[in-house]
Amino acid sequence: MTGSLTIAGLGPGADTLVTPEVEAALADATDVVGYIPYVARVAERAGLTLHPSDNRVELDRARHALDMAVAGRKVVVVSSGDPGVFAMASAVFEAVEDGPVDWRDLDIRVLPGITAMLAAAARAGAPLGHDFCAINLSDNLKPWALIEKRLRLAVEADFAMAFYNPRSKSRPEGFARTLKVLQESCGDARPVIFARAVSTPQEEVRVVPLTQCQPEMADMRTVVIVGASNTRVIARKGRAPIVYTPRSVPA
Amino acid sequence: MTGSLTIAGLGPGADTLVTPEVEAALADATDVVGYIPYVARVAERAGLTLHPSDNRVELDRARHALDMAVAGRKVVVVSSGDPGVFAMASAVFEAVEDGPVDWRDLDIRVLPGITAMLAAAARAGAPLGHDFCAINLSDNLKPWALIEKRLRLAVEADFAMAFYNPRSKSRPEGFARTLKVLQESCGDARPVIFARAVSTPQEEVRVVPLTQCQPEMADMRTVVIVGASNTRVIARKGRAPIVYTPRSVPA
Repeated sequence: MTGSLTIAGLGPGADTLVTPEVEAALADATDVVGYIPYVARVAERAGLTLHPSDNRVELDRARHALDMAVAGRKVVVVSSGDPGVFAMASAVFEAVEDGPVDWRDLDIRVLPGITAMLAAAARAGAPLGHDFCAINLSDNLKPWALIEKRLRLAVEADFAMAFYNPRSKSRPEGFARTLKVLQESCGDARPVIFARAVSTPQEEVRVVPLTQCQPEMADMRTVVIVGASNTRVIARKGRAPIVYTPRSVPA
Repeated sequence: MTGSLTIAGLGPGADTLVTPEVEAALADATDVVGYIPYVARVAERAGLTLHPSDNRVELDRARHALDMAVAGRKVVVVSSGDPGVFAMASAVFEAVEDGPVDWRDLDIRVLPGITAMLAAAARAGAPLGHDFCAINLSDNLKPWALIEKRLRLAVEADFAMAFYNPRSKSRPEGFARTLKVLQESCGDARPVIFARAVSTPQEEVRVVPLTQCQPEMADMRTVVIVGASNTRVIARKGRAPIVYTPRSVPA
């Protein structure tokens, strides 16, 4: 089989955060598949066909990409951020597992990218500088009870936390519940970072004490990072504060 | 003040995984500071002074970098992977918080990089494709009891887990304890990925059922990823298996 499937991470938005490995894969591709705004980030050129598709059709998109690769095309599936973090890689492998056996013989590669929480953390300082967890707050594909259980256990473990997909237009109530759980169970004013569209012209980063967080501070382009109990805020004159989690926890 | 401090992530090893943003910062630097093997990855050139230093002197290194920046130098502190994940960014901010007030007036930036767990996950498939946590297993800067507590809560939350610094030469017993906790509390044969030196010539990736894991399978250059209870393994003829965590959890 001469075709191949590459699942590539475009990073959070800026061209300067795309790895050379991903650039090389795009330069060698015959077909690029992905969600409309991510495919729009790939430059058109002769010999390359772009296949943008809508949100929430991840499995169809994955099967289309696999079909083209089996037919001999060099297909790149693009994700924002890192394809392995709440993105297309798992959808492709779900399709492979349930699909025809010859899909398993394909040359399939995943190329990592800068995932949103790392770009957001870098802008704020180093809030994920010690043990942390990443939770997808969408209850589209899992029950809300599981999200709430994970939130409570993450607080008990004293992880810093990064939340993806905090607040969709169709289900805005989940993030309000999340804040309520955290405000009740943390019981302190630890810093929360609302980082929207980091590295794009729409970038906005706010640091808000947990006690003052409001659901409207997040949307689907926001990554929310909640500090651990020992996360620190360094105030600065005329500059944004620095938020970081120390490397050590005294006994 | 004309000096600046940039804390940059070099990614896991390969030049093709260094972002253009980090390359630009290195091209503009007057001084590069970091642990010996990371500074060795930066090309020498006229006008650039390299300041390699040994392991376990992170705070001294940070203060040296801050001093030079205040004196007007363009200083880049380099970390492997992402500087905000178990790396130099927190050490620099610890130094800033405890240091002279003029350090806070500096132009300080953190530039994200591909952290080891994302490079490792990409090689194996998408084991971090759903909710996960990252834990530093070194008990050098925190009590072992806290590590064990976090492990037990992470199992209860059913997170996939990524472990950094799993097994040092001087304290090899922590990882044996970790495996014992996981083998007892998970009670299944979920896949564990031992990913060593990913993207370098020394790269080795193994997938081992939890029940068969041995402490000797990891060293300090290894990132260990443990699947969640629903993490899947796709067997392939003549190729490494694919390990991925599905996007959905049925109610």
